[in-house]
Amino acid sequence: MKEIKGGVCAARGFRAGGVWCGIKASDRKRDLGLIYSEKTCTAAALFTTNLVKAASVLVSAEHLKRGRLHGVIANSGNANACTGEAGIQAARRMAALAADEFALSPGDFAVASTGVIGVPLPIEKIEAAVPSLVNALNNEQAGHDAALEAIMTTDTRRKDIAVECEIAGKAVRFGAMTKGSGMIHPSMATMLCFISTDCAIRGELLDRALRKAAGLSFNRLSVDGDTSTNDMVLVMANGASGNEPIEAEGSDYKIFEETLTFLCVKLARAMARDGEGATKLVTVKVSGAGSEAEAETLAKSVVSSSLVKAACFGADANWGRVLCAMGYAGVSFNPDETSVDFAGTAGGKNAGLITVFKNGIPVKFSEEEAKRVLSGEEIEIRISAGSGSGFAEVWGCDLSYDYVKINGDYRS
Amino acid sequence: MKEIKGGVCAARGFRAGGVWCGIKASDRKRDLGLIYSEKTCTAAALFTTNLVKAASVLVSAEHLKRGRLHGVIANSGNANACTGEAGIQAARRMAALAADEFALSPGDFAVASTGVIGVPLPIEKIEAAVPSLVNALNNEQAGHDAALEAIMTTDTRRKDIAVECEIAGKAVRFGAMTKGSGMIHPSMATMLCFISTDCAIRGELLDRALRKAAGLSFNRLSVDGDTSTNDMVLVMANGASGNEPIEAEGSDYKIFEETLTFLCVKLARAMARDGEGATKLVTVKVSGAGSEAEAETLAKSVVSSSLVKAACFGADANWGRVLCAMGYAGVSFNPDETSVDFAGTAGGKNAGLITVFKNGIPVKFSEEEAKRVLSGEEIEIRISAGSGSGFAEVWGCDLSYDYVKINGDYRS
Repeated sequence: MKEIKGGVCAARGFRAGGVWCGIKASDRKRDLGLIYSEKTCTAAALFTTNLVKAASVLVSAEHLKRGRLHGVIANSGNANACTGEAGIQAARRMAALAADEFALSPGDFAVASTGVIGVPLPIEKIEAAVPSLVNALNNEQAGHDAALEAIMTTDTRRKDIAVECEIAGKAVRFGAMTKGSGMIHPSMATMLCFISTDCAIRGELLDRALRKAAGLSFNRLSVDGDTSTNDMVLVMANGASGNEPIEAEGSDYKIFEETLTFLCVKLARAMARDGEGATKLVTVKVSGAGSEAEAETLAKSVVSSSLVKAACFGADANWGRVLCAMGYAGVSFNPDETSVDFAGTAGGKNAGLITVFKNGIPVKFSEEEAKRVLSGEEIEIRISAGSGSGFAEVWGCDLSYDYVKINGDYRS
Repeated sequence: MKEIKGGVCAARGFRAGGVWCGIKASDRKRDLGLIYSEKTCTAAALFTTNLVKAASVLVSAEHLKRGRLHGVIANSGNANACTGEAGIQAARRMAALAADEFALSPGDFAVASTGVIGVPLPIEKIEAAVPSLVNALNNEQAGHDAALEAIMTTDTRRKDIAVECEIAGKAVRFGAMTKGSGMIHPSMATMLCFISTDCAIRGELLDRALRKAAGLSFNRLSVDGDTSTNDMVLVMANGASGNEPIEAEGSDYKIFEETLTFLCVKLARAMARDGEGATKLVTVKVSGAGSEAEAETLAKSVVSSSLVKAACFGADANWGRVLCAMGYAGVSFNPDETSVDFAGTAGGKNAGLITVFKNGIPVKFSEEEAKRVLSGEEIEIRISAGSGSGFAEVWGCDLSYDYVKINGDYRS
């Protein structure tokens, strides 16, 4: 498996593009994007678990039932959530507008939206822009880049990837783009992720692989504990690589699942690093728990704690808050068998490791050294919670002044 | 029922005091406090639900088993949590030091600690200071004030109260002090609350009333989602008012429970208002839910949302985040039957009310008016979630730059 260029267009047969249609008032930043495959794709998706679901989520879930798509049309600047029946009609119309351009049916397109909740989607602006959007489709990096820009909101970095692996002698490619920096919490929140692949794979297996990959990546990510109304992770597989279709679990499926997981984990980490206001990527690894699920629960409790996050921002080796967050996770563990290490990365280099708590006993450490370890761009909190075999790794970020600033008045 | 002066010393037969023993290095702020009743008290307490419990919690829970106390000794500046067997010994010693001064047994005293986790408690400093602490005991406001100062950490305001009610023809008095501004979340967190009353009441009923009152107050309070290792709400009833002892549920018990609840709600609101970095008290009222428990879950999800809290800080009527937080609360409700109003208080006066969402449909409102309503010191979010009979009111605060500042480097 190797990383390659091209984003979602790295997978053969996919084109992408983005334009400014006027939903975003300022900057003429692109706000409408499209990813399209000429060949019909096998498709699978995961949607938000929020009870309040955006119109785009409801409509896409409906379209996904068939398990086949040609593409996805997405806008930023407006979530089309809490917009009632008019919102549903607008989402349907969005799919139909894309479909019309290719003489396909609306059900061949998924629809995604992200942005402010509760404002009617200006569908007439989208309608006016779709022809130029389709004209702008491109099967190279530039197409990917334009579509990616069109789905970004408060994101400060691009979060995309493409990889190539070999499946039964054929080079199979995957591309992906994601947006999301606030409102991110298990399971998924204000995140959109579109994955293309030219692999041929049966729908049921595609769905299985996506669930597995998301469970080890996006669902192990927390930025601020809020789960949004609009989340969607979508994978489309068009078979253009010419591989013998994957029809059953086996070594080909294994490679597919591993590649998809690799890609999703990379994106999840990138999203944590780009959390709203984040200055640091925080990784929490829990080992020795009673089970993987318990390790995950403990790790998420630590990575979600406002106090732990604020301590990471302040480069403060405050392991007491780590223990405290484990304590209210609702999972049983023995504090007397627990150990905590902090490790840091600064300027891309290992910034050292300090042990702060060992088998239930505080370890004396140099505050100066701790500051040095924790002042870089990555912090890893390694927790041994006992002698069990449960292990999990989760990602989040620190809590900074800028998080408050960004969210104190997002709408204006 | 009327509010009176005197704090915990308002209840007859209680004395209180506080001294500086040197746990807090700076400022010579008081850090060791004592509340004492000559008469044996019926006592009841609630402790943290965190799996990691401070030594003071473990030792006090042991002493409370008998249901009788003469007082409580408390320190700030050190949580005596994650301090192993030495911490337990130190907590026991703390109780014994107080008991020795009155020729009582260690089990007659509860022990409470608050402050940094994982640092050994300097028991020798406490030992040296206990005689002067006992000398400083005072049965008036000054005694209460000194003890209150001794339990405060990052608190910026005093949170105390005293009330008098009439039970079977006798004037019965209650006093209370509380500390806690960060790490506050249902059920209770880094909060200490000591309540005195001169009522005579059977232990079992005292315990029942405390659970009821705390359920409607401290357990409906969220500052930052973290539940601490050290929480304790303690009530001591010495019977000095001379009322006919309350031995069964009935009208006397009812008055007792209501008065205790009134007092706890006042303190819970004061704690929310004094949340770390808080600039606003945020009250969320949910009506129309399927049950009281569901209303409480929905309201807590809203009041705990970092995005809602940041919007309150920014005086942003971002009802989309309110809907979103309800949506991931895990409770069923119908968004199409949901309405949301924001009301404000500024300078102690009603700053108006705006309806932003009505029966599932966004309501157009003036952003200018919204800013005016939301810029005061209190925000109330009123949610109607359907046609059920479930109602609950919860309290929290906004998320400000100062929260990050206070918690970014608490230890230094």
